[in-house]
Amino acid sequence: MAIHLGANQYGKAESRVVRIYRDTPRHQIRDLNVSSALRGRFEDAHTSGDQRDVLPTDTQKNTAFAFAKEKGIGAIEDFALTLGAHFLEAAPAADGARIAIEEYPWERISVDGEPHDHSFVRAGSGVRTTIVNVEGRGDERKTYVVSGVQDLTLLKSTGSEFHGFLKDKYTTLPETDDRILATSLVARWRYDHADVDWDKSYDQIKALLLEQFARIHSLALQQTLYGMGEAVLQQHPEVAEIKFSAPNKHHFLVDLSPFGVENPNEVFIAADRPYGLIEATVVRDDASEAGSAWHAVPGFC
Amino acid sequence: MAIHLGANQYGKAESRVVRIYRDTPRHQIRDLNVSSALRGRFEDAHTSGDQRDVLPTDTQKNTAFAFAKEKGIGAIEDFALTLGAHFLEAAPAADGARIAIEEYPWERISVDGEPHDHSFVRAGSGVRTTIVNVEGRGDERKTYVVSGVQDLTLLKSTGSEFHGFLKDKYTTLPETDDRILATSLVARWRYDHADVDWDKSYDQIKALLLEQFARIHSLALQQTLYGMGEAVLQQHPEVAEIKFSAPNKHHFLVDLSPFGVENPNEVFIAADRPYGLIEATVVRDDASEAGSAWHAVPGFC
Amino acid sequence: MAIHLGANQYGKAESRVVRIYRDTPRHQIRDLNVSSALRGRFEDAHTSGDQRDVLPTDTQKNTAFAFAKEKGIGAIEDFALTLGAHFLEAAPAADGARIAIEEYPWERISVDGEPHDHSFVRAGSGVRTTIVNVEGRGDERKTYVVSGVQDLTLLKSTGSEFHGFLKDKYTTLPETDDRILATSLVARWRYDHADVDWDKSYDQIKALLLEQFARIHSLALQQTLYGMGEAVLQQHPEVAEIKFSAPNKHHFLVDLSPFGVENPNEVFIAADRPYGLIEATVVRDDASEAGSAWHAVPGFC
Amino acid sequence: MAIHLGANQYGKAESRVVRIYRDTPRHQIRDLNVSSALRGRFEDAHTSGDQRDVLPTDTQKNTAFAFAKEKGIGAIEDFALTLGAHFLEAAPAADGARIAIEEYPWERISVDGEPHDHSFVRAGSGVRTTIVNVEGRGDERKTYVVSGVQDLTLLKSTGSEFHGFLKDKYTTLPETDDRILATSLVARWRYDHADVDWDKSYDQIKALLLEQFARIHSLALQQTLYGMGEAVLQQHPEVAEIKFSAPNKHHFLVDLSPFGVENPNEVFIAADRPYGLIEATVVRDDASEAGSAWHAVPGFC
Repeated sequence: MAIHLGANQYGKAESRVVRIYRDTPRHQIRDLNVSSALRGRFEDAHTSGDQRDVLPTDTQKNTAFAFAKEKGIGAIEDFALTLGAHFLEAAPAADGARIAIEEYPWERISVDGEPHDHSFVRAGSGVRTTIVNVEGRGDERKTYVVSGVQDLTLLKSTGSEFHGFLKDKYTTLPETDDRILATSLVARWRYDHADVDWDKSYDQIKALLLEQFARIHSLALQQTLYGMGEAVLQQHPEVAEIKFSAPNKHHFLVDLSPFGVENPNEVFIAADRPYGLIEATVVRDDASEAGSAWHAVPGFC
Repeated sequence: MAIHLGANQYGKAESRVVRIYRDTPRHQIRDLNVSSALRGRFEDAHTSGDQRDVLPTDTQKNTAFAFAKEKGIGAIEDFALTLGAHFLEAAPAADGARIAIEEYPWERISVDGEPHDHSFVRAGSGVRTTIVNVEGRGDERKTYVVSGVQDLTLLKSTGSEFHGFLKDKYTTLPETDDRILATSLVARWRYDHADVDWDKSYDQIKALLLEQFARIHSLALQQTLYGMGEAVLQQHPEVAEIKFSAPNKHHFLVDLSPFGVENPNEVFIAADRPYGLIEATVVRDDASEAGSAWHAVPGFC
Repeated sequence: MAIHLGANQYGKAESRVVRIYRDTPRHQIRDLNVSSALRGRFEDAHTSGDQRDVLPTDTQKNTAFAFAKEKGIGAIEDFALTLGAHFLEAAPAADGARIAIEEYPWERISVDGEPHDHSFVRAGSGVRTTIVNVEGRGDERKTYVVSGVQDLTLLKSTGSEFHGFLKDKYTTLPETDDRILATSLVARWRYDHADVDWDKSYDQIKALLLEQFARIHSLALQQTLYGMGEAVLQQHPEVAEIKFSAPNKHHFLVDLSPFGVENPNEVFIAADRPYGLIEATVVRDDASEAGSAWHAVPGFC
Repeated sequence: MAIHLGANQYGKAESRVVRIYRDTPRHQIRDLNVSSALRGRFEDAHTSGDQRDVLPTDTQKNTAFAFAKEKGIGAIEDFALTLGAHFLEAAPAADGARIAIEEYPWERISVDGEPHDHSFVRAGSGVRTTIVNVEGRGDERKTYVVSGVQDLTLLKSTGSEFHGFLKDKYTTLPETDDRILATSLVARWRYDHADVDWDKSYDQIKALLLEQFARIHSLALQQTLYGMGEAVLQQHPEVAEIKFSAPNKHHFLVDLSPFGVENPNEVFIAADRPYGLIEATVVRDDASEAGSAWHAVPGFC
């Protein structure tokens, strides 16, 4: 019987790189979670244990920390692109590199109404992400950037209906024209190219997603997500497509009638499991090829 | 051999009560995690299985949801006091009731620069808590309120030293006059009485804790915590004592010298475990008796 | 600008289905976590909010519970296949259904040396999984079964080397011929067809994976995984390919020399993050086409 | 206004100490999570930042790792007692030391039916714990040992009733004479003295707890816990008292009647939150004084 090595990658996951910029008394903090992985012609490492082509995961980690000082961090997309390109040079057997970065937001603490120079508090409202894939060398070099936001918990207390759905023998769900709609959003958008002002694009897209969530009168979470994605594609030509993974975090109206109490959509129980899970992609018709952009991206790749 | 039932309590933990106020188009959201427990003369339930004195945990849960509508929520301290007093009436065998509530903060989503009427995003910067103990009946009624904040992640990128400590054979830690100081703070303060504007007190104390963390030039996390507590007691006569539980979230300077790169306190690795854990109490000399205020409070009670 | 809906699916995640078989006094317990998702022609739900083609996620949940009684559970692969086929019938707009099930193992409690009839304790040693994809109807029906095991934490205290790897400017890792090798294994194998004794196959493959992990003198985690996969393919013709996702859970030798204490590979610190992450596929040369078998499978799909 | 430092302690939490015994080819593994904390006269560290009395948490960590080699581990109770006594010597300002250890169980992997020499798989069925408090010096030295088991998930599929409970306006729970009873048990028992064969005592008590859970026909979780504790006290004179913290992990019978399907206690949904939480202590009448045995023990201390 003949067998062979199929798809593979290896790397160092979740290096917690914290970079302080302290050139002036007004410090800046960048707080990252960096994961890298290389894929390619690593048969020997697997079949005979010969590691000569393997750049250790420990080295990948070292590089992420060293580059945080040597190259600086800049936008996480740029940092990921720099790391990815470097690893392809450092590991000739690699055909592709995948760099994933999460960035945690911090705000300055207010003292006497002034933002403090070097004291910070972790902010809420989402974690910024990027997953960069770099493939090939020299003129063949291709780069793919998928950025996004996660842990963005949203809720509408009205303006959400759900009715007219398909019914079968097992359907008991009542139709409603007023419910709570809540989700913990993961959005990932693929950039069409790398000539992007990453920070500006991220800030605007995140704000737009929030705004659209608020604006759209929802007939279903699917329709809300589609409308959010549509707006992003309309206003951001640099985005080729956008994917959402959105749990429908159920808030069930509590039946207070046994106690003689009315409950006109005022008291809800927030449930943990099970939850609806809606996943959708909105794509520009003339989007560039996705190539390996979605390689190893968590979600419904 | 003779044995007996010792300390005991029972209740319903983590009811996720979400209350929408929608009397006007501008909705308000209150998002709570409510736990209740009763203690007292419940020997029969334990020794013979006779449940006649036991108000079911399910009933406790129902009550929390019903009261969210019937009584409204108000400050979580008031809601907890109301529930606690009610349970002592409802369950004559109970000598004490403990109500713990966490409240998750939400912000309005901005649309065209205006806060939206009914769309919200979960905010960061800490979870508000209260743990209320109610004991006795009638003139003997005693109430204890311990409020606090948790999940408040703080970091100073400078202004923190650690040196002059005790050394023994197993000490290898280098002394430093400049390190990152970071913690995920849990603070709990005991109110001296219940005649308090709870919301105002919470907002001010939380802001003061942040401000003091920023202000204090730290010689150790202990000293920072003490200074934070001191300020709270000085400015808030309604507070009898305050307790902190603060992990020292280590950020280790990364040695980049093998790569010929200097690292003057710029690149750190954020570590998970182990972590320092500092717990301290600051008390007013003439504080009222704590009684059962700290009963079953997580931390170093 | 023209845009369109791309890949999408929706369903109910993490229904915790517990089924007791109690036809005799000797009860049996099956403890499942069931997730289902439908994909296909759901444009209307997204673009106009018209739900007429949408079988609610609530109905999917109801069906999982009802089928646990109506059809019984049997092997989780059979239960998933039954649910998947049913959902394609129930939702004509669906082109595919994905059913993922985790099964938690329980053992009988021993009383006087005898396994008890109806009292159980959760066992360790891995969670059984399956992800089934069903596509098409009638003669076009295709089914794909990917089963596996997760949360299988393994450790070798010797018999693991790592050396001869590629070095660059950022490499500081010392070579070693004796280290701890530890992982929390996720393995997923694709069955070549559905004519399988699922329970027997699972039991044997899991045992074989453990045995191979023990047997193989490791030159790298990659080589260990390949050897584990090779053995599965050699002994299980019903398996077309197998994928592994294996964190390298680092156990660092603690330097006790400052205390004048030798540490010949005896005292280690188990680290949390970062960790190596090794992902590999071993495939039979003449394996059947994977089709949509790996659709939405967590890992490096 | 005068304020002062109240209760305080500081230490290093969650050092993951892994010790391999490899004197023969048949290795043994001990996998611990060690936390230590010192309390006492540390006013200066808090009020002026003077650290001269403070043995750094880093040193505490170093000591745990060094002692794993120098002293060996033995029973976790002995290891904790050794560490606690040492820290009181090393830090003269400390009045008390608290050492908490969790031990994770491993089993040998079977190869050809034989347990392997150096390959292990993590086992389920509970984590062994101890929390040791040491106070005073010389003849005044007092030691307290509270050992236990946690993460022990238990379920009875019948033999559990719940009825006859107190009812009020908010009670809707139906009475039942047959339900699922499930919990994730935390048990902690205080030893009357330190002249104990710790390993034997632990093994027997854990087995007895499981056996009693199975044996007792339950009228409430309270009664089950009391019966479990009673048996431990009856059979283990070395135990002074035992405390339980036991979530009532609700398994709700699913209503299948809308689908024309009967459900005679066969299909349940396992719920996450809210959950009942039952806490109880069973004490020997002539138990020794608890002293500081329960100092800073998680639960309802």
